[in-house]
Amino acid sequence: MSDSLKELTEVIRRFVDERDWSAFQSPKNLTMALCGEAGELAEQLQWLSEEQSRAPSPEKLQNIKEECADVLVYLVRIADELGFDLVEATRAKCRKNEKKYPVELVHGRLKRRDEY
Amino acid sequence: MSDSLKELTEVIRRFVDERDWSAFQSPKNLTMALCGEAGELAEQLQWLSEEQSRAPSPEKLQNIKEECADVLVYLVRIADELGFDLVEATRAKCRKNEKKYPVELVHGRLKRRDEY
Amino acid sequence: MSDSLKELTEVIRRFVDERDWSAFQSPKNLTMALCGEAGELAEQLQWLSEEQSRAPSPEKLQNIKEECADVLVYLVRIADELGFDLVEATRAKCRKNEKKYPVELVHGRLKRRDEY
Amino acid sequence: MSDSLKELTEVIRRFVDERDWSAFQSPKNLTMALCGEAGELAEQLQWLSEEQSRAPSPEKLQNIKEECADVLVYLVRIADELGFDLVEATRAKCRKNEKKYPVELVHGRLKRRDEY
Repeated sequence: MSDSLKELTEVIRRFVDERDWSAFQSPKNLTMALCGEAGELAEQLQWLSEEQSRAPSPEKLQNIKEECADVLVYLVRIADELGFDLVEATRAKCRKNEKKYPVELVHGRLKRRDEY
Repeated sequence: MSDSLKELTEVIRRFVDERDWSAFQSPKNLTMALCGEAGELAEQLQWLSEEQSRAPSPEKLQNIKEECADVLVYLVRIADELGFDLVEATRAKCRKNEKKYPVELVHGRLKRRDEY
Repeated sequence: MSDSLKELTEVIRRFVDERDWSAFQSPKNLTMALCGEAGELAEQLQWLSEEQSRAPSPEKLQNIKEECADVLVYLVRIADELGFDLVEATRAKCRKNEKKYPVELVHGRLKRRDEY
Repeated sequence: MSDSLKELTEVIRRFVDERDWSAFQSPKNLTMALCGEAGELAEQLQWLSEEQSRAPSPEKLQNIKEECADVLVYLVRIADELGFDLVEATRAKCRKNEKKYPVELVHGRLKRRDEY
């Protein structure tokens, strides 16, 4: 199956249209929903050690996959409502990050940008 | 340019590898970073009306695009570290949602699942 | 009953000690838990209009109260684990905000600080 | 100085009133702002180990205190706008948690409620 985000965007748009939900799905509301799903993802991992989070049980992994999916659904909806290409925006941000975090400055250390 | 998420995953993985950051990027830590970016997205929209959020200024739209990109970067990293296909997981979740929110129950009304 | 935060801190500390949970309650983990509860609060309000959020149904209000309580529990735990006075820290931040947002600059308009 | 949350509520309310900001501060918007601050707190701790989060540097501790303060400010505002007593609501939630997490079930193990 395709891993195109455009096709996924259409699947999700059709889901929303069939339910006549678009009036509720302002970017503001979708962002709140995304925060909700990010929080549910956090709940899956909050009491695990970092080590445990790298090797979750099958049941935990399934929950993590579903919460990540929920975040992506709202991300795709926000981009669709505002009419921008999410993958292109992310490629542009990655190019910006290349400059913001030059290898020679940050190699082997990961911090907030203002802490280097 | 391709909108494949697999290609984006590789771009981001290379970025991390060049900086030797993978030791920091446990799924637990990446989830905290995702919550941080979700929060930054919320900050862009918190004082706007729903109406305003549908038609942001060019500068605001640019900020929203960058925050959405940051969320996607961490989502892609989590899936890459845990070895699952993010688009496939999202398609599976959409199929589940089709059953959870049947059109005849939810048409024209959007609520939490337990409030219908 | 007292509205002292110190007394509340003690109630919550006793709850944790009785369950022998303190080994799990690093500030890092507590922060993830707080993000989870903030997300649950967002879920209560995400599809409401601003108007509706000002006058929630009794059932909705009860849910909001409980989610706010959950956020405060983790906030109190973080301060207790790190040994600082949460009310004093908040008073100090309020004094800082007095200078950051002078009345003559911001009166009647609420934006991100860098947008004035 | 008092650690009463009622007095703090009044300090913060005056701050908002002087700036004529209350029209923006619907519970919905305040919740988004709270999610933003929760995200900023997460950013402070995301790349630290649990161990490091228990003994932050003085500068990091100061940042954590300020982010916790920001979360409390919005929590206090939500309760004030909706007219409930935040400490009382938290005491009530703690009593509920006493029953939800009985010592004999959960001693020494901390999980999501549905995972015991």
